[in-house]
Order: sequence, then C-alpha cells, then structure tokens
Amino acid sequence: MSQKQGLLTDVIDALCCLPGVGPKSAQRMALHLFQRDRGGAENLANMLQAAVSKLQYCKQCQTLSEYGLCELCSSPKRDSKTICVVESPADVWVINQANNYKGQFFVLNGRLSPLDGIGPEEIGLDALEQQLEDNGVTELILATNATVEGEVTAHFIAQIARQYKIKVSRLAQGMPVGGELEFLDSSTLEHAFTGRRIIE
Amino acid sequence: MSQKQGLLTDVIDALCCLPGVGPKSAQRMALHLFQRDRGGAENLANMLQAAVSKLQYCKQCQTLSEYGLCELCSSPKRDSKTICVVESPADVWVINQANNYKGQFFVLNGRLSPLDGIGPEEIGLDALEQQLEDNGVTELILATNATVEGEVTAHFIAQIARQYKIKVSRLAQGMPVGGELEFLDSSTLEHAFTGRRIIE
Repeated sequence: MSQKQGLLTDVIDALCCLPGVGPKSAQRMALHLFQRDRGGAENLANMLQAAVSKLQYCKQCQTLSEYGLCELCSSPKRDSKTICVVESPADVWVINQANNYKGQFFVLNGRLSPLDGIGPEEIGLDALEQQLEDNGVTELILATNATVEGEVTAHFIAQIARQYKIKVSRLAQGMPVGGELEFLDSSTLEHAFTGRRIIE
Repeated sequence: MSQKQGLLTDVIDALCCLPGVGPKSAQRMALHLFQRDRGGAENLANMLQAAVSKLQYCKQCQTLSEYGLCELCSSPKRDSKTICVVESPADVWVINQANNYKGQFFVLNGRLSPLDGIGPEEIGLDALEQQLEDNGVTELILATNATVEGEVTAHFIAQIARQYKIKVSRLAQGMPVGGELEFLDSSTLEHAFTGRRIIE
C-alpha cells in the first residue's frame, strides 16, 4: 500500500548508485531537487548525459577527458621526458594544484590487486611500457598512494622501468607539514628517520 | 595550471547542487561514475531528465507525482472524508509504510515560516480550505513535524478548519517506542504525562 512508486522512486533508486548515498540520502536529494532546485536537476542530467557520451580515457595518459588526447598530453608546454604515475585523475588535479611539476602524467585508474583480478593489463602497464620504449622518457616519478597496494604497484613499475635504464623515483615519505611527532605512527616515523636530510 | 576543467569538472560542479555534497564528495562521485559505473550515470541522467519534464504537483494533494492526480488521490479505495496534512512527500511514504491509514493526504511542501517569506499561500492552504469547503471532509489529521514551525502550522490550520466544524486532531506526542525515560527530554516527558492514558 505504499505510494512509493513511479518516477520519483526511479530517481531515488538511480541516486543510490552514487558512492556514499543510501536510500535515505537519495530520498532527501530527490525531494530537494524537485521541490527546490529543478534547474539543478536539469543541469545535472544534461552534464551527466554529455559526459556519458563524450568522456573517454586519454589515449596517452589514460586520464578521463572529452578529448582523445587530454589537455595536458596535448600541451606543448609540458615536458614529455618526465612521467608521473598516479592512481586516479584526482591525483593529477592535486599535483597540478600543489606544485610546479611540468612533466606528463600516466593515470593507472586503479592499482595492482591480484586478489580482485586487477593485474598489470587492467591498469594499462603495457601502454606505459610502450611509452617508455618509444618516447625517450628519462624519469619516471611513482606517485601511487602510500598504501600496501600502492607500494606494490610502484615496485612493479620500477622493475619494468629498470629494463629501459630510466631514472625512477618514488615520492618522499616522512612527517606531513604541521604534523606533531607525538601523534605520528611508527612506520611514518621510521621513514622520516631513514629519509632524513643533512642541513648544509 | 590546473587540469581541472572540461566536462568532468562540469559534472563535479553539477553534483554539488545535491544537498550534503561538497566539492570533494562530488569529485569522488564523478570519478566513481565514469571509472566504474557508466551505466549508473546514464540511468541517473535519464531518470533525472524524465522527472524534470514530467514530475508535477498533484492538483488535489500537492504531492510530487508524474500524474495530474496522484495515485493515492485517484484511488477509489481511499477514504476522501479524512485528510492527513503533512509537510513533505516523504512523510506520505512513511505514514503509508507504518500504519493502515486509509484516508487522503495533503502535502504542504513546507511549513509556515513568516521570516523566510513562507505564508499560508506558499504552502497551499487556500487550496486545502477549498477542499474543506467542497468535499465534505469530516476529519483533518495534522501530522506536521513536532518542531516549532510544525506546531505553528498545525495551529494555524486548526483555526481554519474550526470555521467548517470539522474534527481536527494532532498526532499524539509522548515517549517513542523503545525510548528510555532517563534519556527523554523534559518537553517530551511533559507531553507524555499530560497525554497519559487510563488503562482499563
């Protein structure tokens, strides 16, 4: 005897595909959209539709882009001899916002995880190896996450790169800026000690 | 120097119109959709578009529905002599799920809030009054929220209904099922005492 059927329920169900959104939040979102922000709903629908039909993986760096070759890969200002390997398009944004890295990127869209069936091909390591072979890359910066899977992935890529005599580096690990020693976990502290730098 | 532009960013911005979704969650949602669940994105876009073009307010009870007269209002099984007044379509669903109320509903899509410019017309009280006048309604159940605005709205509607000699009731207030006395706030406890029922 529930009235919960029809279009509004379809929208609520569809919203549940968003990560972190359960039936209750989806209901709140749907009612908000159709009671107070129809323009927003329409805009969201249009944007999603355009993105579904146009977004693809850049054929060079594998990031999500509406162009076959993304803006960074097609920019003549970026140094194509240096490639920074990251797990997700979000990491590209963070790195571009944070510092003045001027090289290219390679987006794995995942990490090695054999138990989940994610091997080297699934994250495009064959394409990366092809680039190392063809493009005269001189440095590979491994910027995967500092998690177990991220470390394993970085280690695996480092082994591939070694065959091509390419300089391979990994992001430094240590104390985060503003971090207090008292609250640092012991692994990070160990990294901070091992990687300590001489002050000239 | 950010790569954060183009279609993906448009989607992220559009997702920010959802309540409780900020730039970071929107980014996570967009990447999830386009890396792992394109079907979900397409479905969401289609549902939103259909809902934007078809969802309207039921001309009798003001709930959101794709029909001019919603399913409850057009159902011959519902008792049209009783109207339950609620603040939101979600309340209709909750009441229909919870008990065997068989009357009609009237959805205010809001509550009286003069400071925000929400007066009797904005929540459709003129339409409700018209129904009281025309339809031979015998009971009005005021099921607005137990908040200050909800109480004020209920009081206001009760005054209107009094002119038509209609029985007006308000949902009972007291201890919630499973509630412990120790953690009850004093207002609720007061309601529970005032509204105590004789055990036969």
